Amino acid sequence: MKKHVVGIDIGGTKLATVVSDSTGHILGKVRKPTLAEKGPEYALGLLFDMVRETVRLADLEQAAISAIGVSCGGPLDTKTGIVYSPPNLPGWDALPLKTKLESEFQVPVTIENDANASALAEYRFGGGRGYNAVLYMTMSTGIGGGIVLDGQIYHGANDSAGEVGHQILLPDGPLCGCGKRGCLEALCSGPAIARRAQAAIRKQLTNKKASTTMLTLTDGRIEDVKSEHVLEAARTGDALALELVSETAYYMGWGIANLVNVLNPDIVLLGTIAIAAGDLLLDPIRETVSKFAMTRPAAAVEIKPAQLGDALGDLAAVALVV
Amino acid sequence: MKKHVVGIDIGGTKLATVVSDSTGHILGKVRKPTLAEKGPEYALGLLFDMVRETVRLADLEQAAISAIGVSCGGPLDTKTGIVYSPPNLPGWDALPLKTKLESEFQVPVTIENDANASALAEYRFGGGRGYNAVLYMTMSTGIGGGIVLDGQIYHGANDSAGEVGHQILLPDGPLCGCGKRGCLEALCSGPAIARRAQAAIRKQLTNKKASTTMLTLTDGRIEDVKSEHVLEAARTGDALALELVSETAYYMGWGIANLVNVLNPDIVLLGTIAIAAGDLLLDPIRETVSKFAMTRPAAAVEIKPAQLGDALGDLAAVALVV
Repeated sequence: MKKHVVGIDIGGTKLATVVSDSTGHILGKVRKPTLAEKGPEYALGLLFDMVRETVRLADLEQAAISAIGVSCGGPLDTKTGIVYSPPNLPGWDALPLKTKLESEFQVPVTIENDANASALAEYRFGGGRGYNAVLYMTMSTGIGGGIVLDGQIYHGANDSAGEVGHQILLPDGPLCGCGKRGCLEALCSGPAIARRAQAAIRKQLTNKKASTTMLTLTDGRIEDVKSEHVLEAARTGDALALELVSETAYYMGWGIANLVNVLNPDIVLLGTIAIAAGDLLLDPIRETVSKFAMTRPAAAVEIKPAQLGDALGDLAAVALVV
Repeated sequence: MKKHVVGIDIGGTKLATVVSDSTGHILGKVRKPTLAEKGPEYALGLLFDMVRETVRLADLEQAAISAIGVSCGGPLDTKTGIVYSPPNLPGWDALPLKTKLESEFQVPVTIENDANASALAEYRFGGGRGYNAVLYMTMSTGIGGGIVLDGQIYHGANDSAGEVGHQILLPDGPLCGCGKRGCLEALCSGPAIARRAQAAIRKQLTNKKASTTMLTLTDGRIEDVKSEHVLEAARTGDALALELVSETAYYMGWGIANLVNVLNPDIVLLGTIAIAAGDLLLDPIRETVSKFAMTRPAAAVEIKPAQLGDALGDLAAVALVV
């Protein structure tokens, strides 16, 4: 009999529970809003119910579940399983998540921050299969990262390794969510790209230059321009949008080159925005990396979009325990 | 009976061979000039003789030697033991160093680039003892680096990991030996500090400001000012020298903060110039790191001078095989 596992994906806006077999094949799934404002006790109760419901959906008994994997926003301690006040989960202060789940379900629980869990999922099931040194970087609301070496998540001294989004490139640059300036995340996350786009459009309008497709896409509302409009407009050849893509690729390439010199990865997998953008963004990133990184590590590395797409959240939690 | 090993330290200007017992206690040592211009065959012949001489000096038979460790400038391939044209060893092009030594001495040979070997030596015998994630950074002619995780050198995809000196901070900054601009090495190596000092002194003289102790130390010769004069003058309170130390600490701290965010090391050990400078340089580096790195990894890391000093080269080679 194959073993089955439960995966729990805890986000600030939604909770998801899945049941999977040992190959990562998903047999059942339940999603509910986190209602983060109701605090951790509410979310925990909801999660307990969701886990049971998912097991039923998968036509299994609770006894068929051998382990639970949890992917959750950090910071958290993977050894003790305690979650320390993730920014998107108000009230989750020193919450002993692992202990609570273990005493409820009587199976071993592994908790991991979502970027690390995603990196492991890409290694197990996605673009990182077969590579010894995998660097995964999200490119969405923030820029997170996870490092998988010889099949194991690299945690560092206190589970804080892989904070690739907070590499500082421009110490006098734009303010980052972390309170510092000019982090890669403050330049290349989705909101950061949108901010740069809106500023560039305002500047162009002030100079009374021709308008941009980006504005057409938002019915003229500058404040509605998002990273997806930048990409869409760039695909139509819009000059300003292409400039923004090129600037984004420059900062990403610079940051990745520095990481390539230190980690010498076999592969760098880029998520979300990079998946949506494809080679429009990846090609100039690759060019910048080969210009800025040392010859040998640059020759060794492949830079590719992450592969798991929408399945990532589910598989991230599952990858921890299969 | 304890096992004994040979350590070989290959530099561009000198060769050293040592014999050590299994605890890293050095029993004999021979040093000779590399005479790099004579090419690899000359150096190899010399090394063969030096190894035999060192074993005799240690009052041992050749049969008492169980392994040979070699610390050498990279790039090199640790698996095949082939050295690929290190900049300081002209003619060492695809030289099968491991094979040559193994067929001469009939014992297993481990070769490693000098920065990685030094990192391992600090882990085994120096400031890195007892730490799981150790980052060692040289600060001398260049800025090299080595990463030791759970007691093993981290090599990456093709033995190029740990190139911390080529992290680019200022893409329009000073030219680096690697051909790129604004690498940490181009800002904070010994020659880079000297270059910045000389430029600052020239600028001060142009502005007809008061002179600096740095010039007193070199009998007025600007072109002779080196990093050691900057440190010596800073210790006497010389304003310009203090400014140069502060600038050096800013760049080092910025670069180390980025590394701390990614690697989350338990300890960062800084060599050579940092050892000579002590807290004069280390304190402002620590301040910059705690300002620029994320709170959790910054809280976990200690930043200290490397401990092995002059013994480093010998122990680097030995650490590979004991």
